[in-house]
Amino acid sequence: MELNERQKKIIEITKENGPITGEQIAEKLNLTRATLRPDLAILTMSGFLDARPRVGYFYTGKTQSQLLTDKVKRMTVKSYQSIPVVVEESASAYDAICTMFLEDVGTLFVVNKDGVLIGALSRKDLLRASLGNQDLSAIPISVIMSRMPNITFCHSHDLIIDVAKLLIERQIDGMPVVKETDKGLEVTGRLTKTNVTRAFVELAEGQFD
Amino acid sequence: MELNERQKKIIEITKENGPITGEQIAEKLNLTRATLRPDLAILTMSGFLDARPRVGYFYTGKTQSQLLTDKVKRMTVKSYQSIPVVVEESASAYDAICTMFLEDVGTLFVVNKDGVLIGALSRKDLLRASLGNQDLSAIPISVIMSRMPNITFCHSHDLIIDVAKLLIERQIDGMPVVKETDKGLEVTGRLTKTNVTRAFVELAEGQFD
Repeated sequence: MELNERQKKIIEITKENGPITGEQIAEKLNLTRATLRPDLAILTMSGFLDARPRVGYFYTGKTQSQLLTDKVKRMTVKSYQSIPVVVEESASAYDAICTMFLEDVGTLFVVNKDGVLIGALSRKDLLRASLGNQDLSAIPISVIMSRMPNITFCHSHDLIIDVAKLLIERQIDGMPVVKETDKGLEVTGRLTKTNVTRAFVELAEGQFD
Repeated sequence: MELNERQKKIIEITKENGPITGEQIAEKLNLTRATLRPDLAILTMSGFLDARPRVGYFYTGKTQSQLLTDKVKRMTVKSYQSIPVVVEESASAYDAICTMFLEDVGTLFVVNKDGVLIGALSRKDLLRASLGNQDLSAIPISVIMSRMPNITFCHSHDLIIDVAKLLIERQIDGMPVVKETDKGLEVTGRLTKTNVTRAFVELAEGQFD
């Protein structure tokens, strides 16, 4: 949506003088109230200005990009997460790599016998282990995995944008979606850069409403 | 931007009857032309309808999300790509893994002595090789890499959205950004799911204009 010069001027006037009535804005622009009506309607409907009866117009402080991206800020983990793949801590590095290929995932979550999250294992962790030139089936994952509490996780109600920021900040490819239980964290999903890429595509394709 | 009931009706009428004049729309709604003026202005400015003098209003066929995401469709590879990391085809799997850790990347591009792209190597390719329990320094990358012409690549002027779709479709983490030369493809960049995740964050944070 492109604003015209007059609409931009109205925003400027309201920013400086708000709350201000339509009459007062018209006066400042040497135009009639009727001429301005469509512009004021557009600016109000699109969220740049807010109008209160008997008070006047306010500037909402929202830029066009903020308004455009309000949509993005309603996208939650729940709608984009994948099924988690978990392994037990007794598994070997060799087992873990096989599971990654079988399940076609890049991150595994490690759980104890109560099903509680105790670790995470990335392709990077396994590649590092393979540099040692040791027998991979003799390396227990418990010595190469990242361990709680050093694991970044999220909840299904979290925003994709917040998780995306964490993925970049922590330089990880994915994280578990968890639920708190009496025993600890239960893994209910997996949220990766692939899911964020999907969210981006869906948004850009307009399949999101 | 929320449309009101009347505006939604106007869109429906124009969709079915367009091109249609403002007078005719007003008639169908039992309203005066003057009453409709702000609504028609809003719908035209925001791109739902298009108006041609002496012809009338058309439905543009754009949904609200399409209009919202037009912005996304202007994001190109050039603005988000990373520096590529290349290795020569004579390198071993061991060398390649070391380079990945040193350069902190998940995908390497393989070039011949003219600097022309001949292959690509992912963490997944290297993990698969490590399952063989062979000495990784004895495995040449030329036998485990993906090889041209089976490599997905993009250009710096491509849209992030198109590249994002390719990354998902082909189930890869990244691809080379290339430039055509007399000898073949020269690698000028790297575009990964991390870059797409960054694009998503930037958009959602409103830093993009």
